[in-house]
Amino acid sequence: MPVYQVPVRDMQFLMHDVLKLQNHSSLPGFGDATPDVIDAILNEAARFHEEVIAPLNRVGDLEGCTRHEDGSVTTPTGFKEAYQQFCENGLGALAHDPDYGGQGLPAILALAIGEMTSSANQSFGMYPGLSAGAWRAIHAAASEEQKQIYLPKMSDGSWTGTMNLTEPQCGTDLGLIRSKAVPQADGSYKISGQKIWISSGEHDLAENIIHLVLARIEGAPEGIKGISLFIVPKFLVNEDGSLGARNGVSCGGLEEKMGIHGNATCVLNYDEATGFLVGEENKGMRAMFIMMNEARLGVGMQGYAAAEAAYQNALAFAKDRLQSRAISGAKFPDLPADPIIVHPDVRRMLMDSKAFIEGARALTYWASLQEDLSHKAPDEETRQKADDYMGLLTPVIKAYQTDKGSKACNDAMQVLGGSGFCEEWGLSQYVRDVRISMIYEGTNGIQALDLVGRKLMRNGGRAVQSWFAELDQWIKDHEGVDGLGDYAKGLAGVKAKLMEATQWLGANAMANPDNAGAVSHDYLHLFGLTAHAWMWGMMAKEALAHKGDGDPFYDAKLKTGRYFLDRILPEADSHLAKVKAGSEAMMALEADAF
Amino acid sequence: MPVYQVPVRDMQFLMHDVLKLQNHSSLPGFGDATPDVIDAILNEAARFHEEVIAPLNRVGDLEGCTRHEDGSVTTPTGFKEAYQQFCENGLGALAHDPDYGGQGLPAILALAIGEMTSSANQSFGMYPGLSAGAWRAIHAAASEEQKQIYLPKMSDGSWTGTMNLTEPQCGTDLGLIRSKAVPQADGSYKISGQKIWISSGEHDLAENIIHLVLARIEGAPEGIKGISLFIVPKFLVNEDGSLGARNGVSCGGLEEKMGIHGNATCVLNYDEATGFLVGEENKGMRAMFIMMNEARLGVGMQGYAAAEAAYQNALAFAKDRLQSRAISGAKFPDLPADPIIVHPDVRRMLMDSKAFIEGARALTYWASLQEDLSHKAPDEETRQKADDYMGLLTPVIKAYQTDKGSKACNDAMQVLGGSGFCEEWGLSQYVRDVRISMIYEGTNGIQALDLVGRKLMRNGGRAVQSWFAELDQWIKDHEGVDGLGDYAKGLAGVKAKLMEATQWLGANAMANPDNAGAVSHDYLHLFGLTAHAWMWGMMAKEALAHKGDGDPFYDAKLKTGRYFLDRILPEADSHLAKVKAGSEAMMALEADAF
Repeated sequence: MPVYQVPVRDMQFLMHDVLKLQNHSSLPGFGDATPDVIDAILNEAARFHEEVIAPLNRVGDLEGCTRHEDGSVTTPTGFKEAYQQFCENGLGALAHDPDYGGQGLPAILALAIGEMTSSANQSFGMYPGLSAGAWRAIHAAASEEQKQIYLPKMSDGSWTGTMNLTEPQCGTDLGLIRSKAVPQADGSYKISGQKIWISSGEHDLAENIIHLVLARIEGAPEGIKGISLFIVPKFLVNEDGSLGARNGVSCGGLEEKMGIHGNATCVLNYDEATGFLVGEENKGMRAMFIMMNEARLGVGMQGYAAAEAAYQNALAFAKDRLQSRAISGAKFPDLPADPIIVHPDVRRMLMDSKAFIEGARALTYWASLQEDLSHKAPDEETRQKADDYMGLLTPVIKAYQTDKGSKACNDAMQVLGGSGFCEEWGLSQYVRDVRISMIYEGTNGIQALDLVGRKLMRNGGRAVQSWFAELDQWIKDHEGVDGLGDYAKGLAGVKAKLMEATQWLGANAMANPDNAGAVSHDYLHLFGLTAHAWMWGMMAKEALAHKGDGDPFYDAKLKTGRYFLDRILPEADSHLAKVKAGSEAMMALEADAF
Repeated sequence: MPVYQVPVRDMQFLMHDVLKLQNHSSLPGFGDATPDVIDAILNEAARFHEEVIAPLNRVGDLEGCTRHEDGSVTTPTGFKEAYQQFCENGLGALAHDPDYGGQGLPAILALAIGEMTSSANQSFGMYPGLSAGAWRAIHAAASEEQKQIYLPKMSDGSWTGTMNLTEPQCGTDLGLIRSKAVPQADGSYKISGQKIWISSGEHDLAENIIHLVLARIEGAPEGIKGISLFIVPKFLVNEDGSLGARNGVSCGGLEEKMGIHGNATCVLNYDEATGFLVGEENKGMRAMFIMMNEARLGVGMQGYAAAEAAYQNALAFAKDRLQSRAISGAKFPDLPADPIIVHPDVRRMLMDSKAFIEGARALTYWASLQEDLSHKAPDEETRQKADDYMGLLTPVIKAYQTDKGSKACNDAMQVLGGSGFCEEWGLSQYVRDVRISMIYEGTNGIQALDLVGRKLMRNGGRAVQSWFAELDQWIKDHEGVDGLGDYAKGLAGVKAKLMEATQWLGANAMANPDNAGAVSHDYLHLFGLTAHAWMWGMMAKEALAHKGDGDPFYDAKLKTGRYFLDRILPEADSHLAKVKAGSEAMMALEADAF
């Protein structure tokens, strides 16, 4: 049976030591999040996830969801009760605005809980996860009246939410949306059309489901400028807040997927369903983009969260499985063979994952702090800078960390050999589940385009210039510090390559726009390496500060950091070389000649 | 529905133009394989695979195999009839020795058929595939009497074969085998024990199954030096060749696997089953190793074969799916959006796959020619060199090409976005099926150790030195040739890096054996890149020779070769840097501190 223990210690290290949340106690909600409170929340949530959510992971994979003839959908055995407990524990609204039923705590705490849920049971986590995304969109774009109607119930979990973007003919290219909205005399709209791949689109966990739907109001401009956002509740809500009539939205089918079987991925048919406009007509995309960065941060988290669970299983196997002797001589001569963790190539896979996961967690938590700073910091300059950073790093976190998270799950499977390929060991599920994270919330290719085509150039390159300056400052401050010189040097090296790639883009992307698309993937990976190198520098600094404690946690952190410098950073060379290869060979072949 | 068209043209190009089989017509069997005969075999087999074998791929995935209460196993609907046709078409014994029912044709033809079967339906292909492996082991190591009893029936497909190595406590480390063999008065043995993960271990395709079983004769030395090889037929064979009593081997269960559902992966229980010693007592590993290289070559083929099928599906989707406009401006302004093949990042994934697949096919076919030369060449020098080359390149082909083949299948899935994750499109199956190729026939980590720990040093490094000299000669011969200079330069560059890595190994692996294991993965990938670079040089040379023909095939080959040089070869930099990082950081963390 798969194991999963919440890495509470690593979470604490990041919150207390590296990001020093306590230094931000003047921000709204941060004052309540004292180290003691944080530790209590993490520990309690960890126990709940290990005991309740994780054991349902394989159940969800094996059973999947069931659609009944009437269009209702049943989630796997145990999901409903677990969701009930999840809500009772208040885990779904830790960082939500207290004006609408939330607890107003730092976003990083919600992220940590999301990580636990995702590691323990990705399919389950997507029910509250999507709901939080819908919550944020409503919070950001809806009227006060709409917020009062929907948000408190979504905060306490009795209602969940969904995001309805995709249609059969339109995925990435939302300008192709056909779902239509017809204005009614009472100010509402009748929504008709078909949406596909709607995660958590129909289920039995909550009494109502609040669908957020992109549709085109009759007569709206063509393309992306004619898209509006609507709230379409499964059950209409009476004036007193009680549930009214069943709305004209129904689940027409469930997708058979490679993974995340426990989440209901629905075809949703809208047949003159009553919808309520959110924000202005034809400005639906704006509302979507507001919550997009935060949702994508959550997917970037899923990448390393799955890797964490898979890694833990691989590690347990590697310590237990006896096979062959260490090349350097038997380590356990009394046993019939040595545990395979003695073999360097097994360690390569484990250390690759460990170094990735810890760097990814740090970067994602850091970005989550930027999210709060961008909303809550008292001064405009701090807010802007945090918003810039989060915008810049979000596509990197989403794509780099799901690419690498998927690789880490595959490496974990490889550690188990033939057992990894057998379903009973659970590694297959991690590999299959995590694979969707490279695709949804914008494929990783779209993230790369978002980075090179939008985020990099926005406001004259303000975000990236500011971030580069921050890295330079870190390098300057630490290159002479005992024990940190190699981190400064490693960061300086990879940052120089990223600069070179950025300059190459500047010089070549305007003249030939295909160059931007052609190099975007490798550019993004180079960006991810640089960001992780910075995080490893920050973590090493704190670990060094505790070196005298005799606590093996800090020693392991430093050894893992050294591994990152020696064995992960060299990937930068190939990415830079590929960037500089440009688009010529990529675009040379005529489509018909493939 | 997934598509698959056999790339006959590419196979012909390699056999006729690049490897020039016709120049080897003096070798036994090669004289019969005139270009016309080869083309006829390829075209007929292609039609059969496209029409009969490929349509059963998804059936196999959905149905899987069924074990009944009596231990019998039923294969998916249609497999039995298709297998019958496969045998009637003589596709299972094209290259087998004509003295034992084979057609004696060049091994490369059997490989090409194996590729078709593997691309069309990996699970199905494993039935004749494993059978061919067992055939070769018997052919290489058994007595003349045994060969006469078993091989003709295995050649015509009425009996199949299996390889029984793994036990619950022993995978890689065969010295841990516990299955025991007790000598009987009549010269036979009673075999008892449990074997697991036996592909094609029990099924309804053939009237008998010939199990090759590694076991330990009572009183044999401990470890690997006490392992013997036995033939254990499912039904004993009477003197007249008819089937006799049911032997004491039975299927105790089928594994639930991530993929290859259509192949029966069995637990086989041996309960005093009658077995017949193959070769000498305690020399079972030697017989295994004889056929290991050829079997591993077949797995390396599976890597690119799956990638070919996945790539074809991704390509069809990319030409058909309309989404967004080309960055450089609309290419099909009359359509609602451009087909996604216009987008550079989609092309990156397609071209990565295409360049890999074509290089891998070339290298595998080349190795297959070495296999024939090693057996059939008239002079000892040629035989030895071919055997050296095949031994050296086999772990590279197996591991590099299944690592990259798995990546290519994942890239193909990524091209389809959300559709790729939905089972009905078939990409998930390619990703799930191909994954086992990185694990079975020795995990890819074991291949890397085989390369650095065994193949490289064997006979004082004779094989690698000879191969390096051959590359140098190619570079020298072509660096001044118009149109080939860049290929010579690319090959020289990557070969220099491989030399540097080889020298690093020479200098560091003796002093600290962990260094060999630590760098083996990256060293092997550098080796694979170098071998593919050589192949691309050879292919470019032949394509250039036809450049005036106006045939788009040759133009596409050259553009793909250019892509390999520009966009794949740069991966060498990172692998070399990782090699030179050595084992220190990898081995630093105590097992308990992970």
